Formats: sequence, C-alpha cells, structure tokens
Amino acid sequence: MPWTLARRAERLNPSIIREILKLTEQPGVISLAGGLPAAETFPVEAMRAACERVLADTPHEALQYAASEGFGPLREWVAAQMAAQGMVVDAGQVLITTGSQQGLDLAAKVLVDAGSTVAVESPTYLGALQAFAPYEPEFVSVPCDDEGPLPDGLSVARGARFLYVLPNFQNPSGRCIGDARRDAIVAAAQAQRLTLVEDNPYGDLWFDAAPPRPLAARAPGQVLYLGSFSKVLAPGLRLGYMVAPPKLYPKLLQAKQAADLHSPGFNQRVVHEVIRDGFLDHHVPAIRARYKAQRDAMRSALEAHMPAGCRWQVPAGGMFFWVELPAGLDAMALLPQAVAAGVAYVPGSAFYCADPPANTLRLSFVTVPPERIAAGVAMLGRLFNEALLKKAA
Amino acid sequence: MPWTLARRAERLNPSIIREILKLTEQPGVISLAGGLPAAETFPVEAMRAACERVLADTPHEALQYAASEGFGPLREWVAAQMAAQGMVVDAGQVLITTGSQQGLDLAAKVLVDAGSTVAVESPTYLGALQAFAPYEPEFVSVPCDDEGPLPDGLSVARGARFLYVLPNFQNPSGRCIGDARRDAIVAAAQAQRLTLVEDNPYGDLWFDAAPPRPLAARAPGQVLYLGSFSKVLAPGLRLGYMVAPPKLYPKLLQAKQAADLHSPGFNQRVVHEVIRDGFLDHHVPAIRARYKAQRDAMRSALEAHMPAGCRWQVPAGGMFFWVELPAGLDAMALLPQAVAAGVAYVPGSAFYCADPPANTLRLSFVTVPPERIAAGVAMLGRLFNEALLKKAA
Repeated sequence: MPWTLARRAERLNPSIIREILKLTEQPGVISLAGGLPAAETFPVEAMRAACERVLADTPHEALQYAASEGFGPLREWVAAQMAAQGMVVDAGQVLITTGSQQGLDLAAKVLVDAGSTVAVESPTYLGALQAFAPYEPEFVSVPCDDEGPLPDGLSVARGARFLYVLPNFQNPSGRCIGDARRDAIVAAAQAQRLTLVEDNPYGDLWFDAAPPRPLAARAPGQVLYLGSFSKVLAPGLRLGYMVAPPKLYPKLLQAKQAADLHSPGFNQRVVHEVIRDGFLDHHVPAIRARYKAQRDAMRSALEAHMPAGCRWQVPAGGMFFWVELPAGLDAMALLPQAVAAGVAYVPGSAFYCADPPANTLRLSFVTVPPERIAAGVAMLGRLFNEALLKKAA
Repeated sequence: MPWTLARRAERLNPSIIREILKLTEQPGVISLAGGLPAAETFPVEAMRAACERVLADTPHEALQYAASEGFGPLREWVAAQMAAQGMVVDAGQVLITTGSQQGLDLAAKVLVDAGSTVAVESPTYLGALQAFAPYEPEFVSVPCDDEGPLPDGLSVARGARFLYVLPNFQNPSGRCIGDARRDAIVAAAQAQRLTLVEDNPYGDLWFDAAPPRPLAARAPGQVLYLGSFSKVLAPGLRLGYMVAPPKLYPKLLQAKQAADLHSPGFNQRVVHEVIRDGFLDHHVPAIRARYKAQRDAMRSALEAHMPAGCRWQVPAGGMFFWVELPAGLDAMALLPQAVAAGVAYVPGSAFYCADPPANTLRLSFVTVPPERIAAGVAMLGRLFNEALLKKAA
C-alpha cells in the first residue's frame, strides 16, 4: 500500500479484551468477561431531565465550541470532590477529558519518549498499557503483593517517567492499597523523585468503608490524578478528568487541544446538571448496594464451585474478582471450552506487560445478575475441575 | 519540578488563536476572529426531541461502553453520504471520531515519526499544524495559488508521509479547489506515491454550487478523508469521522481505542436520530442561505471600506474571508489597536508552518450578524487607512 506507517504503529494492536468480548457476545453466553458497569444503574430519568434543562437554558453555549479546559462549574465540582478526599485542589488544576482513557493518552503524550521507562503494577490495567504503548516506552513491572506495589520494589522504577498505579479496587485484581502502604509508596517515590500517575475510576464503589486518601493528597506536586464519571454515572458520556500539578497542567492542556479541542460541552453541562445538587449522594450508595450483593453472590459461588487450590481475594469494592487457578491450568487455553459451555471470562495474561502467568483470570461481578453469576461460576467450577482431572490422568 | 517532559512537549504550545480569542472576548468587541459557527443555526428543538427518543428507546445502549468504530447506523449514514459525493465506501471504512480534530491527531499518530516530512498547503489550517506537531514532523509547504496547491508544486512533498489538504472553502483562505485542479493534484500525487489527508469540514456550506467531488473519490486507496458534524449540526457534540482505505483502517482503529476507547455513544445516537430522516436536507440549505447573506454583507463592507491595495477572493462557501493588506502593514502588530477600536480578527501569520507573510488576516463572516459585520469592517478600514497614512508620512 502507498502508506508508510509510523514506527509506533507496531505498538498498536487489537485489544485482546475486545476480541474476547466479540467471542462472548454470542446469545446465551453468561459473560463475566466485560468490564461494563450495570446498565440498570444508569440515571436515565435524571439524564433526560438534565438534557431538557441544558437545551432550554443554555442551548447555544452547550452546542458551541468551548474551552479546552472544560466547563467551569464542572471543574469546580471536581475540585470540591477532591477536597472531600483530603486534597486541596484549585479548579484551575482540573482538565476535563474524553473519558479517563484520554487522560492516560495525554499523560503519555506529554511525559513519554521512545525508550523511556514507564513502571506499572503487576498485574495492571490493560487499557493503560494500550494508551502508553504507542509512545514506545520500555515497561517495567513493580513487584506487588495482595495489597499492591511493594515500597521496596519501587527501586526497579528508578529513572522511570512515572509509575502508573490504580490504588482503589484495581482492574483487574480488585485489590486496594491500605493507608500505611500508601504512605510507604509515596515516601519511596519521593526518595527517588519518582512521579506517579494515579488512576481512580472505582474509588466510589466501596462496599464497607471508603478507601484511604489518594496518593495525590499525600504528594500533590508529584502525582497526576485521573478520575472518571463512567462508573458513577455512565460510560457512554465519555467524561473523565485529570487533576494535575500546576507546573504540568499547561502541557497537558495543550496536548488536549491538539487531540480533540475539548470534550463535548453538551455532555459536560448535562453531567453537571445531573450532579450539581447532590444527586450522587443517593445514587452512588444504590450502586454500591447492588454491586455488593453481586460481589457476595460471586464469593459464595466461588467458594461453592472452584476446585481446591484456587485462590482469590474478596474485593472490598469495584467490579472484579481475580482468580488464580492451580499451577498447570492455562486460562487462555481453557477459554474456548468455557465459551462453548456458555460462560466467558478474561484470561489474566492480558494484564501484564511481560512474563504473564498462565493461570489467572478476571471475573466481573457487576454485569450480570446474581442468579446468572451463580450459574456461570458453577460452569467454570466444572470446567476447571475437569481440567485438573485430565491433567492428573 | 520532579516531572521529566517528553521531547515532543516542546512542540506543544498555546494556541495563538485561543489567546487572541481571550483578548477579543471583551464585551463590546465585534469579533470577526472566531471560527465559531453561528449558534442560531444549532438545531436545538431537533436535539431535544432526539435526546428524548434515544433515552426512551435505547437508554442502556446509549449510556454504556460501545464499539470503538462508532455507532453502526451512523457509520452507514456516512457511507451513504460519501456515495452521494461519488465515492464508493463501505461502512466498515468509517471511524467515528471525537470531532475531526481527533481524526487529525490519529492520522499523525499512525503515520508520522519524529523527523518525517508532512506537507501542508500555504496557508493551512492551524489546528492541523497543532495536531501534527507533537509527532515531531518536519513541515514543508506546497506552493499554492488562489485555487490551492499547484500540481507541479507537489514535488517539494516527495517522500512526505502525506500532504494535508482542505479542498473546500479552506480555513483560513476560503479558497476551493476546482475540478480540473483536483484531477491534476491527484495525478501528481499518484505519480510520486504521495498519500493525502483530505479534510472537509466546510464542504456542505456552499452558496451557489456544490464543490467538485472529493480527492478521495478520485484515488480511494491513497486518500484518508475526514468529515465533521460540527458545521452542519453543532460543534459542542464533538463528532466527526474518518473514511480510511481498508488497509489503513485497523491501525487507526487501534489508535482510536488507545486514545479514548470510543466517541460518546449517546451523542452518536442523538446525531443519528436527528439526521436519519433527511433533516439535513432542509437544515443545511437554511445555514447556506444565512451564511451567504453574511458573506455578501462582508463583501460589500470590504469593497466599501478597505484601502486600495488590499486583496481578497470572494469565498464561494464556508466561513472566512482572507485579506491581504498592502505590503508593509503588519496584521499582528495592528491587532491591539483593532481590539482597542472594538473589532478583532486573526492575523494570518498563524496559518503558516514557516515564513509567514505579515500582511494577511482572516475574517469570519458567520459569527456576527450583517449589521455588525458592516460596522466591524468599517472600523478595520479606518484603522488600515490610518496605518497606511502613517507609513507614508
């Protein structure tokens, strides 16, 4: 073909998750694979009323070109939310993005050169690897335990442009970094002048207690914070935000202008109209209650059906269980049989930048109702038990 | 600061237009500077009805994560529109983007390495220069006349990753490439295997006759085509599209996934709901009639007030007049006096990748009504006449 591709195009690849999702969209398959929030939680009536109000009150402003920084009152709302989490933020530090995925892209665009080191957790969010990869970094994995990055492990990130961390109910592992560990991570990062990109799409989805203060509240100048409206309102609006140290903000803003001028002003005004008077104060607890019941259903099903030797943590929030199968089982190899049996998951190998273990998988507990969770996990239990028997034979 | 910026961050800079717009947003200033479509043309009632229908009929689908390619029926609509322009396109070649600005970003992300040559018109659209610049190309200007790129001039683009062309009522020059010139440009490009990025935000805004067939219809495998809903519906929705040669499409799609997963599904469904039954067949002619009257008002005012030695083409569509002042006048230097007098424009020097002439400026005729156009141009006439007298003195 007459087109010459940029070198970075080699680092662009089809999302394995999207390929798997296509596979699992067959009717009748119980999909525990998707990372989709429960559509039943979307505030349809509030959205309808907000669209009507915005189009009645400020139609021309909402439909016209707008500031790249984002809609002022929405930026102020974000700043106030951050204050409630213990972080003093000026609205001038808030940049509204087209989903927090765009925040990941802009961060890498401004911070990553070809050959730069970018440090990630192990496992880490696949979408972040995909956002960063086109900027041609060398990835390095920070050693992690059930709580997240090990502070001593940060030494492998020396010289990295940043460490990407998802502290609250991580996708895919479900783990949450505790308060003392957060202090230790920040101290270790400060000691080696390592900057952090902190991604927080799931922090509001806690079941028993809110997670500890963000890393950004502990080292404001050293952390670029990303948030999202996808999990508390709806992902189809594609609205997220960055809260940036003031010295970093102008370059992110210029990168945003170059990327899409601004995020849809109509959506920003509609979201602000929905949330301005405390809507989330009753809406988010309803999501939490629903997801907690689904988490409990999956926990019970896993306990009832998974073969001995499987291991998982019970997530205290978010959307995912992360299951380690007994050594020797290969979650990727078993997926076609699972789909044939009527249930789907995401093999865990997608979530590592290198040397993925074969025996992990991610299960979403928010996309399907409890009875289907139970049925799906029972099918998986049978499949994995059979696989173990075959292996022993 | 603890952050190390990517080398490309040096190529990210504040938009001079946005800086000028801030200057000109003072109350009382007649701004002929903005590139904003007339807000009075936004189809507010149709939008309201469409929001209501989408939220009544498919709320969960509209608010959920969606395919990176875009909403199927909207992609089919785009393919049918292209067919009406003489270009056989499969909906599978259509990628919905977050405004056509994102199309420019994705094109460069997939096609431009640091040091690659990117060829542009002279002058060219500033937003494209800003989208391409972070990928660190070397820009080269193709020589142009009043009709656009000179086919012989394409030789300076030899080896370029692509030539960026805006054939219909170009921003900033207002010029439109004629049919024979289009053939000649395509032939010259094919002879040297030069690929083209064709940007068409203004093509529907013609006043007397539709512009000739797109370049993409003449050399489908060699042209990446960008379109937008910003000028025929409303920019605040941030929806545009790419029509890509099939071999190029997968990498653009993967770049799109990495950049923001997908453009807002809600907006895509609302736009499709607005336009599906021929709405644009009566809406766009109304925009044309309005803009034509405004174009005529500006033409009359320019003829009445501009000093001898000024030169402009009368645009046959789009949004802009491009004025060349007599040699020796500096449009950038005169801008503060213009704003002080109560009128604003964009100095033309912003629209060149190198060696900008000082004596050009861009005037939008769509943002303010005819009587204010007349008043604003009269002020400019006085200012430029005075400047010429001072120079002569």
